[in-house]
This record gives sequence, C-alpha cells and structure tokens, in this order.
Amino acid sequence: MGDQKGPQPNWIEAAPPKGSFRSIFKWGDPHAYKHPNARLYRLLKEAFSLADDHFKVPIDDGCRPVAFDRPAKAVSPEQVTAIRQIVGDENVSAKSYDRLKYATGKTLEESLRLRQGEVQAVSDLVVHPRHKEDVRQLVAYCDRERIPVVVYGGGSSVNFGLRPAKGGITLVMGTHMNRVVQLNETNQTATVQAGIMGPDYEAALNEAPRRFQARHRYTCGHFPQSFEYSTVGGWVVTLGSGQMSSYYGDAGDLVISQEVVTPSGDLKTLDFPATANGPSVNRMLIGSEGCFGVLVEVTLKIFRYLPKNRRYFSFIFPSWEKAVDAGREISQGQFGMPAVFRISDEEETHIGLKLYGIDGTPLDRFMRLRGYPPYKRCLMIATAEGEKRFARNVKRCAKAICRRFNGLYLSGYPTRKWEPGRFKDPYLREDLNDYGILIDTLDTAVTWDRIHQLHQGVRAVIKLRPATICMTHASHFYPQGTNLYFIFIARARDIDDYTAFQDEILDAFQRFGGSPTHHHGIGKLFSPWMDAHLGEAQMAVLRALKRHFDPNNIMNPGGQLGLDLEGRHWREIR
Amino acid sequence: MGDQKGPQPNWIEAAPPKGSFRSIFKWGDPHAYKHPNARLYRLLKEAFSLADDHFKVPIDDGCRPVAFDRPAKAVSPEQVTAIRQIVGDENVSAKSYDRLKYATGKTLEESLRLRQGEVQAVSDLVVHPRHKEDVRQLVAYCDRERIPVVVYGGGSSVNFGLRPAKGGITLVMGTHMNRVVQLNETNQTATVQAGIMGPDYEAALNEAPRRFQARHRYTCGHFPQSFEYSTVGGWVVTLGSGQMSSYYGDAGDLVISQEVVTPSGDLKTLDFPATANGPSVNRMLIGSEGCFGVLVEVTLKIFRYLPKNRRYFSFIFPSWEKAVDAGREISQGQFGMPAVFRISDEEETHIGLKLYGIDGTPLDRFMRLRGYPPYKRCLMIATAEGEKRFARNVKRCAKAICRRFNGLYLSGYPTRKWEPGRFKDPYLREDLNDYGILIDTLDTAVTWDRIHQLHQGVRAVIKLRPATICMTHASHFYPQGTNLYFIFIARARDIDDYTAFQDEILDAFQRFGGSPTHHHGIGKLFSPWMDAHLGEAQMAVLRALKRHFDPNNIMNPGGQLGLDLEGRHWREIR
Repeated sequence: MGDQKGPQPNWIEAAPPKGSFRSIFKWGDPHAYKHPNARLYRLLKEAFSLADDHFKVPIDDGCRPVAFDRPAKAVSPEQVTAIRQIVGDENVSAKSYDRLKYATGKTLEESLRLRQGEVQAVSDLVVHPRHKEDVRQLVAYCDRERIPVVVYGGGSSVNFGLRPAKGGITLVMGTHMNRVVQLNETNQTATVQAGIMGPDYEAALNEAPRRFQARHRYTCGHFPQSFEYSTVGGWVVTLGSGQMSSYYGDAGDLVISQEVVTPSGDLKTLDFPATANGPSVNRMLIGSEGCFGVLVEVTLKIFRYLPKNRRYFSFIFPSWEKAVDAGREISQGQFGMPAVFRISDEEETHIGLKLYGIDGTPLDRFMRLRGYPPYKRCLMIATAEGEKRFARNVKRCAKAICRRFNGLYLSGYPTRKWEPGRFKDPYLREDLNDYGILIDTLDTAVTWDRIHQLHQGVRAVIKLRPATICMTHASHFYPQGTNLYFIFIARARDIDDYTAFQDEILDAFQRFGGSPTHHHGIGKLFSPWMDAHLGEAQMAVLRALKRHFDPNNIMNPGGQLGLDLEGRHWREIR
Repeated sequence: MGDQKGPQPNWIEAAPPKGSFRSIFKWGDPHAYKHPNARLYRLLKEAFSLADDHFKVPIDDGCRPVAFDRPAKAVSPEQVTAIRQIVGDENVSAKSYDRLKYATGKTLEESLRLRQGEVQAVSDLVVHPRHKEDVRQLVAYCDRERIPVVVYGGGSSVNFGLRPAKGGITLVMGTHMNRVVQLNETNQTATVQAGIMGPDYEAALNEAPRRFQARHRYTCGHFPQSFEYSTVGGWVVTLGSGQMSSYYGDAGDLVISQEVVTPSGDLKTLDFPATANGPSVNRMLIGSEGCFGVLVEVTLKIFRYLPKNRRYFSFIFPSWEKAVDAGREISQGQFGMPAVFRISDEEETHIGLKLYGIDGTPLDRFMRLRGYPPYKRCLMIATAEGEKRFARNVKRCAKAICRRFNGLYLSGYPTRKWEPGRFKDPYLREDLNDYGILIDTLDTAVTWDRIHQLHQGVRAVIKLRPATICMTHASHFYPQGTNLYFIFIARARDIDDYTAFQDEILDAFQRFGGSPTHHHGIGKLFSPWMDAHLGEAQMAVLRALKRHFDPNNIMNPGGQLGLDLEGRHWREIR
C-alpha cells in the first residue's frame, strides 16, 4: 500500500462466490485484484469529497447468485435437440448462469446493472463447438431455422458486442477451438484456431523451438490491455490494437489469411503477403465483428522474439503540445517506430506518476527542480524492439527529437514502472465501483492536424461534469495520426445518468473530428454514431456485404456495427 | 554501343510518324529509345541463331497511319451531343486515332497486333473530364443510358485493362485532373487528382518547400518501372508496386483516403490512419480496376525525401537457393527493409551483368576467381533509405546476413549500374519486336515456402519452348514471401502461338502455387485464372460489391477482374 497512515479502505479480495453476478462482471482471474495505491486513494477521496468512512462497506457488490426467469426467445425445444445432436449434449447449456455469462462483456454499464441483479439480453442456448465442422453445421442449421448466432471469444468486449439482442445461440470459441494449428517458420506465420487465448498463443510462440522444433523463438506482437482475457479471433474481428502496435501493427495488419464460416458458405483466403488480384476479400472480413460469419482459423504474421534487445526510455515535456510535437516527429522520422509508445496529458501525467509510484520520489523532485511542475508536465513512456542496433537507433533518434522539443530524459524508469501493471489496470474498476465511483474509458482515432481541437473539445465536455477526473493519452502512433484514449473517473446519479454522459463524449468525438473508437470496435454501443461517421455511402457498402454473407441476418443481429438499426436505437431492439 | 566490332543493327531511332500505329504502341517518349547493347545483341543473335543481316530491315514497324472503320457500338449521336454538353466540345473526340490510342495499353499482344494494323476493341468516344463534377455527371448519365465507361490513366496497363470490350466512352484522367490538391505536412499526406503523372507528383513533393511553403522535401515512395508514364490513380486502382516497395510499401499501403464516383453514388473515405469502425471500405476500393467507379481524388502517405542518406550495396551468391535464403532472412530480420531489393536467378544474373556492363570487367574476373562462375552465380542489388543511421544499419545487417549465406560483397557498383536504366528497359521492346523477337514479362506472388517449386516449375514450362531466354527475379520482399518476375525472350510463329505460350505460363503459376500476378493487376488478360485462384466464395464477394456499386455493369465491363465473364472467355465478349 505504500502509505500506511490513516484507515485502510475495505477493498474486496475474496474471489466472487461461485454462480454470483460478481463472478461474471469481475475482471480476469477471480483471485486477482489490483487495489488503488495510497496516493490514488487519497486523490479519489479529495476529488469526490469522501471520507474514509465511505470506504468501509461496499455497495451493490453483486455477490448474490445469478437468478432470472427468461424463456428462450428464438430457439424451440426441437431446435435445442437438433443443436445437441450436432455438438453433443456436453457442449450445450441452457443454464441461466451460462446464458448470462456468455452474453456479457466488460462495459461499465453491464457491470453496474449486474451489481443490481439487472439482467438484460441473454442468449437462449450456449454452445461450445468442437471444430470447424461443428461451426459449419451450426451456422447452416441456424440460417435455415433463422436462429440468431453470437460469437464469444474472451468476453472482454467493451461495446455490447456480445449482447444477444434477439436471443439465439452463443458460440463459445475458446472451449475447444483453442490450438495452434501450424507454425510455418519459413513464411514466419502461425495458424491458430480462433478461440486460442492471448497468453497461450504467445507462450507457444515463445517456446517454438521446444514446441515446434523451430530454429527461433517468436512473439505475436499483439498485447492489448485485455491480452490475458481475449482470443486471437477476437483481436482480428474487432480490429484491436496492442500496446506495442506502433511497431508491430494493429491486429488487422497481422492477418495473412482467414477461414470464415458464413451463412452463404465458407471462405478461405490465400496466404500471399501481397498480390494484385482485385480488392482484398481478406481485408473485408477483418473488423466484421461477427456480422458476416464465424472466424474459425486465422494465419498471422509472427516476429522473432528478441526481449534482450528491448530498450526503455521516457521523457517529461513542459506541455502537452510539446509532447504531441515530439510524438509526431518520431512517427514521421523514418527510423522505425518505438514499440510501447505513449504520451500522457497533464492530468494523466499527474495521476500516472502517482500510480507508477514516481510522485514524491527524487525523480519527481528532479523534474520540479528542472522546471517541469505538476499539471503542466507531460510524460512519454516508450520502448524500442527488434534487431539490436535497430532498437538502439530508434531510442537514439527518439531521444534527439524529444530534446528538440524540450523533453527532459527520465531514463527508462517510468516505462519500467508502468510495465508490470500493463494488463492489471482493469482490476481497479471493481474496487472503485464497490464504493460508487465509476471509472471508464473511451478512445478515438485522430489525425495530427485535429489532435488539439479533439483533445480540448472532448476534455471540456468531460470536465463540465462536476468533480470528474479525466486522463488522456495517445498510445498508438502512425505517421499520419494517433489515437486519444480518455479515462474518466466520476460519480453518477444512476445508470441512465452515466450513459447520457457517455453519449455526450461520443457526440464530442464526432463534433471535434475523431472516430467513434480507435480500437474498441463498434459493437452495439457505438452504433448510433456509425451513419454520421462513415456516411450513408460507406454504410451502404457494409450493408451490401452483410446481405451477401448473411442474407437472413442471423449473425449477431440487433444493431451490431450499426448494420440493422433501421432507424431504431440499439437499446430498443429485442 | 560499347563493342564497335562487326556490323551494327539498324535500330530505329526516329520518332514514330504522327498518327501512326507505332506512335500508339511505342513506349514512352517518342524520341527516346534504349537499344540493346553490344553484348545483349550478340546474345540474341546466338540464342536465336540469327545473322547480322537479320537486323537490317525492320519487319512490321507499324509506321503506317491509323485507319479503321468501326461504327460506334454503344453511343448514339444524341448521346454524343449530351456528353459534349457536359464536358464541352473541346473535351470530346470521336477521331479514330483517339479511339484507338486510349483503348490501348502496353501488352505485347496489343503491340504485335497494331504493328500489323489489326485493330481490336476501341471506345466509341474519348472524353477528357475537367473536374469531379464532370465525372459525376458523366457517370450518372452513362448509368442512366447504359453506356460503358472505361478509365484511362497513363496507359501503361499490361493486362488489357483499358480494352473497351463493349465500346462506350473512355475517360482520360490526365488531361485536366492532374494537380496536387493539397500537401498536408502535419499529417504527412498529399491529396492529388487521380490523373497526375508520377514524375509531376514526385517533383511537387521534392520541391515542397518552394511549392507549398513546406518545412521539408518529400517523396512519394512509389516508383514502378512505368513511373514516367503512369498516373497516381492508376497505381491505386491496379494495386501497383514500386521498385522500392519493400521499404515504402505497395501502392495500396500508401492510400489514406479516396474519393470515388460510382454509378450508385459518390464515396469519400475518411483520413484516419487507423480506426476500428468495421471493415475498411477504403481498402475495398483499392485494386478495383475501374469496375466499381472512377477514382477522382486520393490522399496518400508521403515520406521525407532524404536522398543523401541512401546506401547502395550488392552481393553475388553461389546459387539461387543461397540468394533466396539471404533475401528471406533479411526480410525477417526486424531491422527495417531495404528499399530497392532484387535478387536475380542464374540466367537473369548472366544477362543482367551484360546489360549493366559488368560482364568482362575486373569485377567479373574477381567473381570468377572467387568461385562465382556464370550460370551459377546470382546477383542481389539493393539500396537502403530513411534516416541516416537506420539506412546504414539496414545495409550493415543485410551484409552480415549475405555473408552467412556465402554472398560475396560487390560494393554498390552493380546497383548503381542498374539504377539509371530502371525506367528505361521498356524501350528495349520496340527494338526487339522490330526484328521479330518477342520480349514480355509475367509476375506472380509467392510465399517463401513455395518459391522454389514455383520458380522451377514455371521455368521448366518456359524453357520447354526451344531457344527461349528466361530471366527471373524477386524484387518485392515481405517477411512472408516475395514475388517472382519472369522476363522471357522468344520467337513465335504468330500471335496465337504467343498467347498460347502466355497461357501455359499462367497455368504454371496456378499449378505451382503462385498468384496470377503480383503487381500487374488482373485486367482482362488474367481474368480466366481468377475463379480458380480466389475460389468461388471470394469471387462471389467481389461480384456482390460490383452489383452494389455498379448494378448496370457500365464500369469497365467485358471481363475486367473476371467479374462478368459468365462462363465466356474475355476475348469472346463484345
């Protein structure tokens, strides 16, 4: 805890009771947690004018057992029998707990509702396909019978992408379809079943010499914050970005070929890294969020695993403008890109230095002395990877640029302090929510020439709300732009009050030149902004593809990607 | 000429007569030529058992004036009047010469036919749109009236992509729509009208400080062999690759956003470098070869122009296998990629060393002495670009790898000898054709694990033909594979004999695991292989998009991309 003075909050450390709502909405490992440290705790108390007493008894902890009465919407008993015949009894469940669990992602809203025992859309039946052939038969059967199909990967969706708005079946990909099918060292690719979890995939690649008699060790290059609880298939269909995407590319960039089962038939794309044979169908499938079909296998680029070459560096800048200028200049410098690459605005820097345990240390005093005071200074953390001299040169060039923009070199220390917690921050949410404090994130893509208008515009909207913490960073860099990732901590009267606030932020993304999301996907949550964002003509193209792949709209119907809203709001679709 | 002994061939140096067939099929600048040097000339005489006398009087030089009688197929006089009203009289031509010129690309077949005065499909009317609005009105009008529309960029198509199989109008994009619309230095992008020619675009970027008050000079990074006679729009719609694509990316990788006018309406995609808002419609338009609509404007990535940082290097390997191994290892080395990057097989190396004037020099003797004899040795030429130390490190790492694979360092000399002629080789064709010798190229994409079977299989098919020279190189590198580019020099009984030979090579691409082309596009010529290559399911997706964008099939109908063949061969479609 660091700071042992004063009473300690009563953070929950026990694993959620089996069968409880909490066991569904809690992030990650049931036994793991990451409590706010003493500095963050103090900051929260100050920000929301709360006393220690407030943190004694959790409110709505969601520990009660899941129970609800919801008859199947779209699957008849005869159909259940038919489905059981396809995959075997042991791979089908109609238990309430399963129907809810696999219908639930990780939006704050879902978590708040489940704390109160409020159940929204659930699937009628949970099905665990054993292999491609099961998926083929299931999709063909469901298409014939008009049964909605939703695909569940790791369950980390933050956009209601798993919501079975019209009931039907949920396919759980990770139960059986979770293997590395092939490591092709000559082509430097790996073929995996879509349901493999991130850490299993990475471990297989790291251990390639032992597991596949490979000459080298490999890495997947994709490390989203949800890495530990997401599937490779999920990365691809939602267009995810990892924390090292600036160097390795976004999930979509890693895909060489795919096998997708759709109602209109199977597609298997080819494994050429580039070819001029018309528009790439492979690309069209990436980001389709379960609306076109079920991704069953995917072949991805892999990379040599060279952790010993990794270089760490970090800088503090006198202002956000200078940090952005340095970030852009590095991205356009033509010496390769850093891997981890993140700049934090003034408020995030202030809180980040607390979280990473730098606030109050000699490094903090050094920064203050050198003219980088709190609430002005902005932090950049970065690593460089790849071949040894390449990585060294990325760091060297980046340092030269940072100095030109008045950056003060902080060594690799802040990056190293950030690194161990990089997949753990989602655990903070349960602690905060236990005491009625909301924490959520929204992210948006932006070009360099609109970054300041977007940052200022969105921040102003968020800060209009009284006592609201708003931390912003850019963490995925391209020569042409970056993303802005907003983390906000607030209190809300009720769930509707919160979702209205969320809508205001998304409106601001639209108004100030951002996209509805940079790497969270659209799902259903962001669908109301799709028409205005892409425009009618582009939406019509997506809908034409939808009609081609899924003429009966059985694949993730009910607002996903904004394809079948037909003038309604996604919440109205049932 | 180099070697002045013996009689000189009577190569044509005069510009083709105005209005002649030759003025249409001749490559590039009417006054420019690149004759085979003495060594190549000797090799041709030997290979085809020809005496000097054979090279005295050109056969079928195509210098006669264009004349043919072909009534308009798809445009009535009333429709001509309507079209004149849209763009103005001065921007419409129904002259035979124009109808043929803008219907003709640069396939060997077209050139052979025109030498004999044989005219195949021509457009009914040539139209030079002035701006987007003209294109909009033209496309809307032609859609209403069911008039086919073909788009002409620089005319360098090598796949009958410009063939107006069903008549109609040809839009010439370069006449008016040839400007840089905007240089956005903050985002490091340029927006251009689709009809701008390569050199004009590159000059504008190189001179950005003067032309756009920019801080830096820029380069487009895309230098196909057709660079001097192709348009930026053409690069994008045909999925071209430049000679430095290994570093800068293929044309499709450079596209940030586009504006396309289609029969079903205009599309303007957004300028985010990456965003997770569903499948990328921007990507779907790339490579559509005029089948979906007319690309009118495109925004591309640009790069800092840093010629002083360029490094040259070249290696000779004891075998093709070693050259391939080194090429693959460099591509997978994670230190960045060379820009120019080419490995030549035994036969191309043999001829290349003659062409670059290295054969018979001290460097040649050095190679022989060190154990790299002709017909075994394989040449690699390369450059590195980008930031200074980055480029130096690419060269350094590549050298270390080449040495591991028994490569002998040849300094940058061979690359420098290759460089000045890099856009000039197409001029050789006219000289050879003038004396009945055919030279043509076909290229294919390949993964690393199939490169040898493909190279050997295709080469065997080509070498089955008596007295046929076959040179092969790989020149576009990816971690997962490369391309194989076959140049063959042969004699043929007649055009049908030649096209049958071409078909055999394309069959071999298919049989041995290549794609129909790596960067020549599909056009109509390669359309017979599309169904087998992509498979029915992928073709159905492309056709669904075609129906969406162009429900009446007015955009480049008659086999383009294999979309509307309906069981026929493209040559049958009229």
